[in-house]
Amino acid sequence: MSMTLEKAEAAVKAAKEKAVELGTLMNIAIVDAGANLTAFVHMDGAWLGSIDISQKKAKTARYFDMPTGEIGKLSQPGGSLYNIEHSNGGLITFPGGIPINGADGTVIGAIGVSGSTVENDHAVAQAGVDAIS
Amino acid sequence: MSMTLEKAEAAVKAAKEKAVELGTLMNIAIVDAGANLTAFVHMDGAWLGSIDISQKKAKTARYFDMPTGEIGKLSQPGGSLYNIEHSNGGLITFPGGIPINGADGTVIGAIGVSGSTVENDHAVAQAGVDAIS
Amino acid sequence: MSMTLEKAEAAVKAAKEKAVELGTLMNIAIVDAGANLTAFVHMDGAWLGSIDISQKKAKTARYFDMPTGEIGKLSQPGGSLYNIEHSNGGLITFPGGIPINGADGTVIGAIGVSGSTVENDHAVAQAGVDAIS
Amino acid sequence: MSMTLEKAEAAVKAAKEKAVELGTLMNIAIVDAGANLTAFVHMDGAWLGSIDISQKKAKTARYFDMPTGEIGKLSQPGGSLYNIEHSNGGLITFPGGIPINGADGTVIGAIGVSGSTVENDHAVAQAGVDAIS
Repeated sequence: MSMTLEKAEAAVKAAKEKAVELGTLMNIAIVDAGANLTAFVHMDGAWLGSIDISQKKAKTARYFDMPTGEIGKLSQPGGSLYNIEHSNGGLITFPGGIPINGADGTVIGAIGVSGSTVENDHAVAQAGVDAIS
Repeated sequence: MSMTLEKAEAAVKAAKEKAVELGTLMNIAIVDAGANLTAFVHMDGAWLGSIDISQKKAKTARYFDMPTGEIGKLSQPGGSLYNIEHSNGGLITFPGGIPINGADGTVIGAIGVSGSTVENDHAVAQAGVDAIS
Repeated sequence: MSMTLEKAEAAVKAAKEKAVELGTLMNIAIVDAGANLTAFVHMDGAWLGSIDISQKKAKTARYFDMPTGEIGKLSQPGGSLYNIEHSNGGLITFPGGIPINGADGTVIGAIGVSGSTVENDHAVAQAGVDAIS
Repeated sequence: MSMTLEKAEAAVKAAKEKAVELGTLMNIAIVDAGANLTAFVHMDGAWLGSIDISQKKAKTARYFDMPTGEIGKLSQPGGSLYNIEHSNGGLITFPGGIPINGADGTVIGAIGVSGSTVENDHAVAQAGVDAIS
């Protein structure tokens, strides 16, 4: 079990459909188990700044095998992981990044979505995950 | 006339088909007129180091509105653009990046391809360009 | 007295044993007095994002000759070292990095550990320090 | 088949023994299939600048699944891959990096060695590869 372009494109397709359903314009990135980029799309008119954020969310989710928002809870001022975002060339720790598991439960990659509220970003990422898990 | 995800995906699809025809495994990146990433795919088993190179080729081609290989002729020792690769966070100036023109001839973006010989990289990039020009 | 590979490997070995005892998967880095990397190990299945964090913790501890968590107390909003993490290519200031002293009390390097809670990270780092101090 | 710390440490041990046999002081790095660092050692007195070079050699060898010196033949002035070193945050394309294959022939990672002549660097890297292939 590992990330493939076929799986990545299925996740991107499902995420785009969810983005349309929510009336949002998203950037969607998929990374493999090594946190290397497998697929990316920028929906027409989506925020340019979110091109990088979506990729950093995907990497962050794979780097720690948890949704990015979980890390963000711990990286606040006074939190146990305060300013962890300075590592790894820059992390993004608010919602929108989710690990992707293979059939045997191992992490095979992650999806990162950016372009709307963090709630919408997370929902679109989850749609991508659900399409291939 | 501008780059759209629909055009970018059409270019990626044509490029992938050409890659398969040539028996190669490619990384394919499309950028828009602002040199921002619009779409990217990593074919299964393609070189990991070419993820970055394909994106840098696309950006380089749009930065100077010419095929990357043309810039590479001028960036050699003694050439007029010697070591231009140090700019813009790193350029790639060997073949595989080609600007994409809109119907009115203005540049709307570029494609960058990396994963095989520079001749194959260029041929696959050209197939992407031809699909939407 | 200075850091040697023999000492670094003894510290890594002790840290790994503590990590196993705690049921954790850790990244462990040792730097010398010049804050240069002497030894590093990534335990199988440990977080990929912690490869960089463990090294940044070790460097941070040596840069300021104190446990990373002590710096983190001062880098909070309103604190005297607010956002010091922006320096030196990125610091990590939560627990898990500890200076290592030679027999005469001078600092000869530091250890950085990342892969679990900051309490576990610190405990594993301390085990490494204890093995060679 | 994938890189493990046990394999990485076996490769490092064999490489160190070869370095001693050759009377050299080396930095030795192992990366996994995702080009992430698995193990690293700096022999006492080895060049500090080679800490980074050994890691970049290992990454370069995995990025393109070939010995780094092969890439260097093509990245010379006038060569087809001139200045490829500007990609991926910096590549090293002279000898000393070699891919590591698993039992089924797939690439599971790479070793990078730096600290002496490129001939010695390559020989030490090869000793590491031979120990676990």
